[in-house]
Formats: sequence, structure tokens, C-alpha cells
Amino acid sequence: MCLQTIVDDIAAEMALVTERGRVADYIPDLACVSPSKFGIAIALADGSCFTAGDADEAFSIQSITKVFSLTMALGLVGDGLWQRVGREPSGTAFNSIVQLETESGIPRNPFINAGAIVLADILLANYEPAEVLGEFVRFVRELAGDDTIVIDHQVAKGEAATGFRNMALANYMRSFGNIHHEVDKVLGVYFHHCALAMSCRQLALASRYLACGGRNPDTGYAMVPARRAKRILSLMLSCGHYDGSGEFAFRVGLPGKSGVGGGILAAVPGIASIAVWSPGLNERGNSQIGSFALERLVEKTGWSVFEERNH
Amino acid sequence: MCLQTIVDDIAAEMALVTERGRVADYIPDLACVSPSKFGIAIALADGSCFTAGDADEAFSIQSITKVFSLTMALGLVGDGLWQRVGREPSGTAFNSIVQLETESGIPRNPFINAGAIVLADILLANYEPAEVLGEFVRFVRELAGDDTIVIDHQVAKGEAATGFRNMALANYMRSFGNIHHEVDKVLGVYFHHCALAMSCRQLALASRYLACGGRNPDTGYAMVPARRAKRILSLMLSCGHYDGSGEFAFRVGLPGKSGVGGGILAAVPGIASIAVWSPGLNERGNSQIGSFALERLVEKTGWSVFEERNH
Amino acid sequence: MCLQTIVDDIAAEMALVTERGRVADYIPDLACVSPSKFGIAIALADGSCFTAGDADEAFSIQSITKVFSLTMALGLVGDGLWQRVGREPSGTAFNSIVQLETESGIPRNPFINAGAIVLADILLANYEPAEVLGEFVRFVRELAGDDTIVIDHQVAKGEAATGFRNMALANYMRSFGNIHHEVDKVLGVYFHHCALAMSCRQLALASRYLACGGRNPDTGYAMVPARRAKRILSLMLSCGHYDGSGEFAFRVGLPGKSGVGGGILAAVPGIASIAVWSPGLNERGNSQIGSFALERLVEKTGWSVFEERNH
Amino acid sequence: MCLQTIVDDIAAEMALVTERGRVADYIPDLACVSPSKFGIAIALADGSCFTAGDADEAFSIQSITKVFSLTMALGLVGDGLWQRVGREPSGTAFNSIVQLETESGIPRNPFINAGAIVLADILLANYEPAEVLGEFVRFVRELAGDDTIVIDHQVAKGEAATGFRNMALANYMRSFGNIHHEVDKVLGVYFHHCALAMSCRQLALASRYLACGGRNPDTGYAMVPARRAKRILSLMLSCGHYDGSGEFAFRVGLPGKSGVGGGILAAVPGIASIAVWSPGLNERGNSQIGSFALERLVEKTGWSVFEERNH
Repeated sequence: MCLQTIVDDIAAEMALVTERGRVADYIPDLACVSPSKFGIAIALADGSCFTAGDADEAFSIQSITKVFSLTMALGLVGDGLWQRVGREPSGTAFNSIVQLETESGIPRNPFINAGAIVLADILLANYEPAEVLGEFVRFVRELAGDDTIVIDHQVAKGEAATGFRNMALANYMRSFGNIHHEVDKVLGVYFHHCALAMSCRQLALASRYLACGGRNPDTGYAMVPARRAKRILSLMLSCGHYDGSGEFAFRVGLPGKSGVGGGILAAVPGIASIAVWSPGLNERGNSQIGSFALERLVEKTGWSVFEERNH
Repeated sequence: MCLQTIVDDIAAEMALVTERGRVADYIPDLACVSPSKFGIAIALADGSCFTAGDADEAFSIQSITKVFSLTMALGLVGDGLWQRVGREPSGTAFNSIVQLETESGIPRNPFINAGAIVLADILLANYEPAEVLGEFVRFVRELAGDDTIVIDHQVAKGEAATGFRNMALANYMRSFGNIHHEVDKVLGVYFHHCALAMSCRQLALASRYLACGGRNPDTGYAMVPARRAKRILSLMLSCGHYDGSGEFAFRVGLPGKSGVGGGILAAVPGIASIAVWSPGLNERGNSQIGSFALERLVEKTGWSVFEERNH
Repeated sequence: MCLQTIVDDIAAEMALVTERGRVADYIPDLACVSPSKFGIAIALADGSCFTAGDADEAFSIQSITKVFSLTMALGLVGDGLWQRVGREPSGTAFNSIVQLETESGIPRNPFINAGAIVLADILLANYEPAEVLGEFVRFVRELAGDDTIVIDHQVAKGEAATGFRNMALANYMRSFGNIHHEVDKVLGVYFHHCALAMSCRQLALASRYLACGGRNPDTGYAMVPARRAKRILSLMLSCGHYDGSGEFAFRVGLPGKSGVGGGILAAVPGIASIAVWSPGLNERGNSQIGSFALERLVEKTGWSVFEERNH
Repeated sequence: MCLQTIVDDIAAEMALVTERGRVADYIPDLACVSPSKFGIAIALADGSCFTAGDADEAFSIQSITKVFSLTMALGLVGDGLWQRVGREPSGTAFNSIVQLETESGIPRNPFINAGAIVLADILLANYEPAEVLGEFVRFVRELAGDDTIVIDHQVAKGEAATGFRNMALANYMRSFGNIHHEVDKVLGVYFHHCALAMSCRQLALASRYLACGGRNPDTGYAMVPARRAKRILSLMLSCGHYDGSGEFAFRVGLPGKSGVGGGILAAVPGIASIAVWSPGLNERGNSQIGSFALERLVEKTGWSVFEERNH
């Protein structure tokens, strides 16, 4: 079946689902997005893109950004990064602080909030403060081949005003010496990373490097070495959906990363990158319809990494 | 490169490694196995098998058995099983009891001890007590196409005499109503499952169904539906190495299941099933040399599920 | 006001209270006791005893027994006991297992179940198995000056049949080496200790030594040295009501020990020992009416240890 | 024996102790105090005061201040305070954050850091920001009858610069809605409360109300109702020494509150208030020599609340 038909069918099916989850309401600007929205985009290495629904409407990518900041931080400091962030599933919610107390302020993995705050701290150590956000946006634009991608400063501001749990996480890690810069600055970077506004199409295009052994297929340039791209995928599979990661691997079988804005990014090694979006969240904070759409996509395509490969 | 050369090279390389981990000493009969042992076997769908080292020496498969008991229990009760066992990484050690207290006696996944004890309880509900071990051995023999596979009763007896932590887990779950049979009987089944003695060759052959969409390639008969085989693989990837699961996914990138006897089972969807064995364990209780051998194998073959696929 | 009038007034007041808590239903023989029961007894050093309500009806003393087994175990092994049991409030429920995992199988204090199971193990190390229960009953009879006190074997049997959580605790501690005897034997002793049937009058008389600097006031003989009696009282104050200990100290201000049978033992240093009983429990597992009665008693008598002393 | 002789003897004995603990080094200005310091002061209701050693040297009272801020906050909001702070021992270290996650941001008791930060928030709700510190100092001065007591702003500043763990606690509780004011302001108040500099003599005099049923014995005026004074004492006994509270109750048997500056405040209901000071801390963060001195004092005086009373 052709990919366009597949995404069209999925969009049509998703439109009929009535259980759409709850839109996150703790960030003011996210609370007013309609739960009826749904977008899907599949990007292939050659840049061709199959989309359906609201695939060109920008949304707040939130925690999906952690994939990009991990990629960027690994480029800057290499495997030394793993001294400050673990590589194991946390078994706890995205904003849990318990694990930090017993593990000396080292977050379990880079895809929970505490881990991504350390990534922001690493970026701050490697760029001028005035440049750190600009460099990040440039990096994502280059990945996507799209210069219109911007940060939604209103969202970033809203998070800064209410992000007490993240402030707690950052201060707590700083008390263990695992945050080196001023907490306000680190969180400024972190909140702005999360506030990147992208459409499904842009997200799918930007993440092609994950499906292409680390290379930007437009330029042929390695964004990360192939070995590291695989490792990012492994972390997405085991840790990309917080305490719902096992369930996502079980149902979808693809490396993925979700955000509370309702987006999910997924990658099929060697084949495609995928972005879906629907703002309602399930009880673990992952997009309800987005997860369901990916489950259907994998059924139709056989793209699960656990599927038999034909050689 | 041909597979035989690859396994020979790996065996030669592993023989030179001096850091071989610590042999588990809490089970008397395991403590006296020489850490210099190393075996590897790769089985293809057609039954061909490439082996090196001590690949025909039987060892105690211990927790690897959980893959077989999960398969058997799913066959008996289907997805109803997931009401009594979760599907998430635990973030804790193999014998942790903490998680059970806060989650009402439901183990996080079937690959930690508590989860596999529930599997034993399910088998007890579906077979005559006198048959339950016999049925299990027959099941594994059929998978392997090898009628010489047996349980080492000495090992089972040793575990029963010292398995206080497992007795605690079982009694604890029973207090929540998640164990239905007498604890002594349930643990009897559990300890005997763990005491299965198999060689790398037998293990690799027995697990071909995982790489073959659930079918026993010798008979063509579906041991589990294809969809369920994929899900078992996803659980192996996210939960198969206790609190070292993320690390194994990161380094090896294959669904795998380890045992404290020093064995590791891994599967490459559509291609091969693999067993390695070396008794020394790393600090997370997984085979040190076995993990390393699989890492090298994946480098040489490109078999990681996160590797680009060529279509 | 004379003590008889006080206990009569309290009994009358308690009879009118309609919120009487929930009778423990996990031990079959406790479940059928009427929540309308209430007894109170105050014993003075001279053996005079002021009672009201159902003060002469025997009930299952359950965890109150821990005070007697601690006293007996301290007599046998002295302060060496504190190497196997802690002296801190646990901050968790009476049957929590979490704390044991992070603290190497050492229970926080002797008044949670895990701690008292260690006490039973200590008694088993010091008496012939056949004697250990007999010695315990003799000890309590001597304290009370009453040879009619007996163990309710029906209750003990009921607990043994359903005490999975306690079996978990004992096995768990045994896995850390903090239980030295067979778990079944240790729990046999523990359950029989808990199944002691005593009336408020018997309990108040038996615990006079706590109010009298460790001496049995009938015989003048020191059951424990004065210094140790004080320390038992301090443990009762800080740990005697599980995770409701702070609340009890706050409201009542006396060293006390509760049991799920609905009894509470309290001591006023130098003045009196007190027992109350009413089977309905509050949400922390302590007698609802019993706690309230002690709160009223302390208001009427000024017996709180935090009250101004007049010298 | 007369009290002056007793304190002289204790000071002489303490001077000979070589194991003096470790001086807290996480607050710069505390780190340079000599561990050889020792002071003791006993104040009676009539204002007479028995002192020895460095009893007139001011030190940073740190967490002892929580007794005063609790008293003040109770005076402002009464028992409504207990909706925002618990009354149970925490079973964890003074700065633990774990308990807050599972208990919705309600600190276990007012004597751990999180609890006292809530007290600061309550004071901020009841005074003009510019007045809140002035009111607090006036309150303590009035209690002590000494207008020379001041806050050491250098210490407060040092804590603010390094108090990341407290910032984490405050932000974390704010995320649950249990802090109502800006975290910086709340911590400003908290750190300045802790930075009160007082001598043993001043502390003992200031806390006479605790031993005198809530009345300031100089003025006869009730600082808190008698009932509330008793309850503060009960909290000091069960929670005043963090995860060493049980041990302190066991060894000393008096309501007490320690601070990392090396001070300990204790009260003997109806008889005396006591302050000791020695900067070296034991492994639980309580003054090593101070605890020992109180243990000796209680042995010599029989002042334990668990001691037989003579009527």
C-alpha cells in the first residue's frame, strides 16, 4: 500500500476516535489547543514527505526537543556526557525527584526532565550565553532544512513562570554539583528548547538523520556518527516515553520520543522518520491519539524493529 | 564475512579478556563454574547453527527461562496475563521488593523475579501439579528439537534452600492476592524452571521462534502469534537485563535476556537467534564477557535493531 | 478528682461516640468483635486498679505484646539487641518492607512487625523450642500477677494461615542474615506472642514495671534495670503507634503501644500504667476510641510527660 | 547536687572528650568555628541561670530557630497550620525531598527543613515583607528578655548562596501549591531565621516558656496556650533530631531541637530549659558533645521525662 494512502487512512480513522485524552493544562499556552487536532508526517531519506491532517500546523514540541539537545550535546562533549546522565529507564514519572536523591543527583537518562536540564547546562558550558539559543535553533533548522522554525517565547515564558518542579530538579542537582551554571540561566535555556514550535512535517524532516545512520540526507553530512545515532535510538526505545516507555515499545515497537504538547517523534532505522501530533494525553502524559496512530501505522507497514526483517 | 569465522574470532578475542566479572556465589552449584568458560551459538531459521568455544556445555539458564515461561503462560491465558504483571522497566535490581509495595503487588514486568513467580503461579493454575514441570520441559524440548534437555534438580534444591528473597517476594505478592497457590508450590515450579540446564546451541535453537515471527521453523507451527512474538522481543529489549537493560540496549541493540548462570539469549528479528555464555557477572548481574561478545557480534554483523535496514 | 470517677466518666463519654473506626478484618477471629466494646484500666504501683466498661473482657493484645517481648529479649541479650534492630521511628506503615531493602534487613525499631519478628528470633536462640512460648507466657503472668493469662491458639492459627506479609518480612530479613532460625518457627513464636489474650485490667497490672522504674511493684524485683525501663518508654513514645506515633505523642503525650486488636497500653512514669480497649481502628491502625479515651484521661489528670511537673 | 556544680562538672568532662564530631562545612561561616568550644546553660523559671564553658559566646542557632518560628506561626494561624505541615517523624535526613513526592508536598513535620520553609511562608502571609524579620527578632528578644540578640547577615547570605537543596525543597512544595509566596522571599526569611546568633544563656532563657506551660515567666504572659506548649514539646521529642530523633529520646529522654551550628535546646517540663553548644556534629548532623552532655545531665538530675516522678 502506498504511504500516502496509509497516512490518509490513519487520519480518517483517528478523526473518529472519541477518547482523545486530556490536554496538558499546566502550561497556559498549551491548555487552549483543541483536542480534535491530529497530524501525521512520514519523511523518507530522499526528502519526500507523506502527510495528512494538521501536519503543517506548528505545535509546541516540548520534550521531543530532548532528542535534538542530546544530539547537540553529544556532538560537543562526546561520551563524557554519560558521566553526568545515566542510560537507564527511570521507572518513574517525567518529573520525579526521588531517584536523584538516592543516585547522587545523576538523572537516570537524558529524556526525563532532570536529564535534559543537564543537557542545557552542557550547552551553556560550550556556547556564549547570548548564542546558546541561537545555535540550537540553527541546529534544528539545518536538520529540517527549514529556516522558518522558531521558538515560541510566550510558551517559554509561561513555563518559566510556573515551572517550579523543574526549578526544584535543577536546584537539587546543583546541590550535588551536577549543574554548573546559574539555575535561572540553565532553566532559561531548557524552557526555550521545549518551546520550539514545529509542525509534524518539520519534525519528521528534522529527524531523518536518526533513520539515516546519523547523516543529514540532504547534505550527506554526518550530524552524529552512525554508532551514536543507533545509541540515541536505543535510548528513545527504552526511555522515550517516561514510565510508559515499556508500553510504547510493546505496542508500537519503534524508538520514539513524546512531548506534553501532544507530539511524538519516531524513527524506523534505514527507512523513515515519523511525526504525529494530537494534543490529548493519556495518563502517562503521552499523546493518546498519537500513540494509537503509530500503532496502526506499524501494523500497516510492518515497520516495528521487532518485525522479521526480509533479507 | 561468514558467521563461522565471526564466532571463531569472537571466541578467540574473548579468551584473551582478563576482566571476566564475578561468578554468582549465592547458589551453591553455580559458584564452582570456572570463569574462563565461554560459548557462543548462532542459529538460523533453517536450523543451521554456528558455534564456538564451550557452546555444547550445559549451564544453568536461570532467568533466561523467563522467556520460555512467559511464552508458555501467554499461550495459556493470553493478554489477561497483563492484569497480573506489568510491561515497564523496573528501574531497580532483579530482586527488589520496593516497587511491589507501592504498586499493590503487581510486578513491573515478567522478567524480574517477582514477575516470573507470577508466571509460575499461572502455570500451576493450568496444569496438574504433577504435570507442570513435565509440560514445561516438553515445551522447551520441542522448541529446541532436542529431547535431552533436563532440569538440574541439584541446582533447584540449592535455590530452594537459600531463596529467602524469592520467598519474601512470593509471600508479599500473595498478601496482595496476586499469587493464588501455596507459596512453596509456586516457588518449587519457579526454582525448577530456573534450573533448566542447556547449552548455547540448545538455547539458540530453542529460541528461533522469537526471530521467526513466533513460528517454530522446524515444524512451521506457530508457538505464539507473530504479534505476540514481537511483544516478547520488545519486553526483552526494555526489561531483559534488570537495571542494566538500558545499557544493554545502548551497547548491543538487540532484544536479550540474561541469567545469573552467565548466559544471555538474544534475537535478531527475521535473521537469527543467539546464545552466549560466560559465568562471570558484571555489577548488575549480567554476564560480563557475554555482553561484550554480543557487542562485538553486532559490530561485525550490523544486526542491531537500530541499524539502518537495507531494502 | 478521684481516678474511679475519671474512668467512669470517660467510659460514659466513650459510649456516646458514634465514629468508632473499623474493626480489623484480616485476622478472622478479630473481625467478629463488636465495635461497641470499650474498657479502661488504671493500675497504680500498689496494685490498686481503677476500671470501667469492659475492662475484664480478654481481647487479643496483638502488637502490644511487642513491649513484653522487647523486655524479655533485652533481659536475655542486653544492648547487643540493638545491632539487629534500630531505635528510630520508621515513618512508614506497620508492615512496610521498603525500609528493609535500603537498610540491609535491619528493622527501624522493635515495635514494627519486622522488629518484633527479630525479637522472636532472639528468644528462639535462648530457649528450647518447646519452652519458648511457655517462658513467654510465664513472664507475662508474673508481670501481671495473674496465672490465668493464656494464648488464644485459634487466633494464632488464623494469623499463620493469612500472614503472608509477615512471612515476606521474615524471609526478607533472613536473606540479609538477620533471622537465624527457620522462618516458620520464628513466625510461629511471633504469631503466638501476638495472640495473647488479656483484659485491660491484666494489661495494666502487667505493665506496672514500666511506670515503676523497671521493678515489679508486687515483688520489688527488677524486671529490667531502671535505665532500660526509661528507654523502653522512649521507644514507645517515638515508635509505639507506627506512622501515627507523632500524632499520639502530640495528642496524648504518653509512651504507648497499640495493637490491631484495639488495645493500647500506656505508662505514666512513676505514677500509673493504663490499658484501654475498643476494637475499631483509625486509618493508621490504632484504636480510634482508645486513643480518644487516653486523650481525655490526660486532660483530666495532667499526666502527659510534657506537662509541667510540680516539685 | 547543686546545678552549678553539675554544669561545671559536665563542662570539665566534655573538655576531655577527643571524639568531637565534624564541624559543618557547607555554610562557609560555620566551617571555621573551633570544635573545642563547649557551652551549657540551664535556666529556671525564676530567671536564674547556671552556665559553664562558652555559654556566653553567640553561635548560629540554625535549625533550633524552628522552635521559635513554629511558636510564632501557631500564634498567627493556630491549628490550621497542621493542614500544611504534618506531625510525624520523617524517618529521613533533614533535607530529604523523597517524602514530599509521595505526600503531595506536605512536609512530615515542622522541624525538617521543608516544614520550616512552610513556616516562613506562613509568616510572610501575616506580616509586611519589610516587617517579617524584625517581628521575628523582636519575638525572640522578648522571649529571652534580651535586646542584644541579632541575625548574622553574613551567615544568612552564605546560606542563600549555597542553599540549593533548600531552593529545591521550596520550589518543589510550591509546585504542589504548599508555598504561596515567591520562593526567593520565602527562603530569604528562612535563611535569616536560621542565622540568628545566640549564646547558650540567651537560648536557655528564651525557651523557658516551653518548660513553663507556655508562659513567659518574666511577664507571666502566655506566649502559647499550655496545651500548645505541650504539643510543641511532643514534636521536639519525636522529630527534633531528624533521623536521630529516636536515638536522642532513647539516650536523653527530653524534648530537644538541634541545629547544625552545634547547638541543642532541651526542655524539662515544669523545671528548666537547657541549651548546650559544641560545633562538631555526629553522623546524623546533631552535636556530638552536646548530645553527650545532655545525656550526662539527665543522668545526674533524673530529668528524663521517662523517669519516675515523685508525687
